Amino acid sequence: MIELHPIGTVRSDIKTPSLTANKDGLTRDQRLQVAREEHRRTRELVSEIAINEEYGDLLDGLEGFSHILVLYWPHLLPPERRSLKKVHPMGLQEFPEQGVFATCSPARPNPVLVSAVKLVAREGLILRVQGFEAVDGSPVVDIKPYNPGYFRIESPIIPEWMRRIRAEAAGE
Amino acid sequence: MIELHPIGTVRSDIKTPSLTANKDGLTRDQRLQVAREEHRRTRELVSEIAINEEYGDLLDGLEGFSHILVLYWPHLLPPERRSLKKVHPMGLQEFPEQGVFATCSPARPNPVLVSAVKLVAREGLILRVQGFEAVDGSPVVDIKPYNPGYFRIESPIIPEWMRRIRAEAAGE
Repeated sequence: MIELHPIGTVRSDIKTPSLTANKDGLTRDQRLQVAREEHRRTRELVSEIAINEEYGDLLDGLEGFSHILVLYWPHLLPPERRSLKKVHPMGLQEFPEQGVFATCSPARPNPVLVSAVKLVAREGLILRVQGFEAVDGSPVVDIKPYNPGYFRIESPIIPEWMRRIRAEAAGE
Repeated sequence: MIELHPIGTVRSDIKTPSLTANKDGLTRDQRLQVAREEHRRTRELVSEIAINEEYGDLLDGLEGFSHILVLYWPHLLPPERRSLKKVHPMGLQEFPEQGVFATCSPARPNPVLVSAVKLVAREGLILRVQGFEAVDGSPVVDIKPYNPGYFRIESPIIPEWMRRIRAEAAGE
């Protein structure tokens, strides 16, 4: 068993998780519409990560990076959802169920979520970041620099369902 | 406090951590030489991730991706190194000390390490991956698909010290 201790907290205008169970009543087109709006809003949104004072020195030098990885915990995820095995991508029945490890769903056995976000500014203990989908109040467990040698894969292959979701919902 | 439970284990020919404290006696050029050799070897190395049986179904569909993110725990990291605040990048004195969150050092408060690796094959509970620097026996806590919409940043800015390390040690 591994123990993590939060090193900071997210402050965001996003107050509720994306596409949660309470949206099960939506039609396919409504779900995609919600996803498109959330995607567009998140892309522009600037949120804050408030680092706990004892970890302030650990941020020194982070200003040299345009992008960072943030590891955080979806504190509003109901614990029982961590035992899901398969899900329909984005909750859309038209896509066959996928194993949770093949999806970006926050519902997974160890829901340590990873986001690559733009670092707009560091102001003391506050990191201002853009494009971060974490919900307000989420505990943050690690900050890493975005090192393109590690994280930028040039021509990754993704399955058809993810290509379609990206095209339809994200407008990419 | 957050609890994680391993979902699998790394099987690798890498038996000792990269550039550990026991290499402190090395000169600058020896350190870079070691780093170059480790980088070259790791890039080609195929390792295995053995997923625990109860999580097998969660892998279904992962075969559709060429690359995955692996979150794992550096089990050989001495616990006292988690309280380091600043380090010289790669242990090289010529680079000013950086806050731990601005480096890729495994020594950090919550050492959940993240690697983007090539998925060579899935064979039941075994994932064969290429380019994975984890040490043999490392507990794995999560597997995610490499979604380029999330993780591929086109033109990230990195500081001069990281550019120099990439050029000198990684040969990029």
